[in-house]
Amino acid sequence: MNNGQGAGQAGFFEQVLARAATTGAPLCVGLDPRAAKVAELREQCGRLIEATAKFAVAYKPNSAFFEAHGPEGMLALLDVIATVPDGIPVLLDAKRGDIASTSEAYARAAFDWLGALGLTVTPYVGLDGLAPFLARPGRAAFILCKTSNPGADEFQALPVQTADGPRPLYEVVAAHAQAANRAGNVGLVVGATDLAAMARVRAVAPDLWFLAPGVGAQGGNLAATLAAGLRRDGWGLLINVSRTLAEAADPRAEAERLVRAMRAGRAEALGHRRQ
Amino acid sequence: MNNGQGAGQAGFFEQVLARAATTGAPLCVGLDPRAAKVAELREQCGRLIEATAKFAVAYKPNSAFFEAHGPEGMLALLDVIATVPDGIPVLLDAKRGDIASTSEAYARAAFDWLGALGLTVTPYVGLDGLAPFLARPGRAAFILCKTSNPGADEFQALPVQTADGPRPLYEVVAAHAQAANRAGNVGLVVGATDLAAMARVRAVAPDLWFLAPGVGAQGGNLAATLAAGLRRDGWGLLINVSRTLAEAADPRAEAERLVRAMRAGRAEALGHRRQ
Repeated sequence: MNNGQGAGQAGFFEQVLARAATTGAPLCVGLDPRAAKVAELREQCGRLIEATAKFAVAYKPNSAFFEAHGPEGMLALLDVIATVPDGIPVLLDAKRGDIASTSEAYARAAFDWLGALGLTVTPYVGLDGLAPFLARPGRAAFILCKTSNPGADEFQALPVQTADGPRPLYEVVAAHAQAANRAGNVGLVVGATDLAAMARVRAVAPDLWFLAPGVGAQGGNLAATLAAGLRRDGWGLLINVSRTLAEAADPRAEAERLVRAMRAGRAEALGHRRQ
Repeated sequence: MNNGQGAGQAGFFEQVLARAATTGAPLCVGLDPRAAKVAELREQCGRLIEATAKFAVAYKPNSAFFEAHGPEGMLALLDVIATVPDGIPVLLDAKRGDIASTSEAYARAAFDWLGALGLTVTPYVGLDGLAPFLARPGRAAFILCKTSNPGADEFQALPVQTADGPRPLYEVVAAHAQAANRAGNVGLVVGATDLAAMARVRAVAPDLWFLAPGVGAQGGNLAATLAAGLRRDGWGLLINVSRTLAEAADPRAEAERLVRAMRAGRAEALGHRRQ
C-alpha cells in the first residue's frame, strides 16, 4: 500500500493553499498521457512534472489514460504519483461514484492504494453515495457540477423546479455540495468554458474550491475565469492546464508564463472587487 | 490484450438473449467480492461462477472491489473475467463517464483490456461524453437512470421543466438514452427498489434493456419487478443478484430457486399482459 500522500501529512486544501502562497497562482497541472506503450506514460509524466514542479499547486493525473494500459498502466500511475514532489498534492481525476458500499472501495483504491489526496467524483447517484469520499480527513472530493465538454448542458443545464423558481441542475448540485461541506473537503468541477455558469455556481457555493478545466486548449479565458471563480479570500480556484503544457516546446517556460498570467489576472480580479 | 470476449463473438445483447432462451430467466449474477487478500477475490468469484454458470445470463463484476486491491486486484479481475464460460457475457460495473476523449480511454480499458462486453456508465457529463462507449459494435453501455441507493432521488427525481410539463430527471435521461439507441446497444440501470419509477422508465424507453439491481438484499420484489420492467417481447430486463447468492449456504440451489421464481414471475407478468 502506497501511503506517500497518506496520514500525518497536511490535507489536500492545506497543501494547495501553502503552495499557492508560494507561487501566487492556482495552476493545477493535468497529466493526460496519450501513449502507445506503458513506459511512455512514466516518461511523459515524469518530464512534465520535472518541468512544472516549481509552478504547480497540484497535479491531476487522469486515471483513464493509465487504465487503458491495463494493470501495468495502474503500476505506472502509482509510480507517477510517487514522482510528484512532497508538498504538492495529487488530485486523481477518475469521476468515481456509486452506492456507498461500492464508493468505499473506490475511496480505498484512490486514497490508500494510489495515494492521491483528492479525487473527482460524479453526483448522479446522490450525495449518500459520495459519503465515503467525504469521510476521509484531509482528503478532498471534487463533485462534477458544470463540465467543459460540448454536450455538458444536455443534463446539467436542465431547468429544475425549486421553491425559488427554475434553476439549472448544476446550481442544485452546487447548493447540495455547499451544504455537504461540513468538513471543508468538498470541491466542484466547474469548466472555464461557461463563465456565466461559473459565476452563478460561485454565488451558490461561496466556500467551495472549484477545479476549472477548459482553459487553453478548450478555449477558456484566464483572466475572466479568475474574475468569475475566485472566492472572496482570493483563492478557491484550481485552474487546470493539460494539453497546453504537454504540447509546449518548452513546458517549463509555458508554466512560468501561465503562472505570471494567473498572478496578473488574480491581482486584476481582486482589485476590481475592492473598488 | 485480453480479447476473451472480443471480436468475432456475438454481441452483448445477442449473447444475453441466447442465454435467456436457454434458462428462461434473466438472472444476472453480480460479483462483488469483499476480501482482505487478492487471492480471495479469485476464489470467491470462481466459486460463485462455477455454482451459477448453468443459470446466469450474464455476470456483473463490480470494478471497485478489485481496484481497492491496486494493480494486483485488476489482474484478479482479468482472471475472473477469463473464468466466465464462453457464451455468457460480462457486464463490467464501473460507472465510467467523462468527456469523450477520456471516455475513449475508459472504453479501451473495459472492452479491450479487461474483455468485458458491457459496461455501466454515468450520464451527468452528457451523452456526447458517452459516445465512445456506444461506438463499439456488439458492446453495450448501461446508463445510470434510477439507482437503488437510499439517496437516489436527491438528483434523479428532481422535477425538470419540459414542454410536456414537469418530469423527473431520470425520465429525461431515459428519453435521451432511448433516442441514442441507434445501434441497439444502449441499456439503463433502473433499480428494483422503486417499481413505479421502473414502469415510468419502461413507458419512456420501450426498447432498452434495464439492469435492475436491488432485488433480494436491497428488498425489491421479483414478480413485481418483472411486471414493471419487462419489454413487450418479454425480455429487456437483467435482474441482478449479488449478495443473496454470495451469502447463500448453497449458491447453486439459490440460483436455481431464483431462476424458477423468475420464470414463474415472467409467465405471470406476460399472462396478465395478454388478458
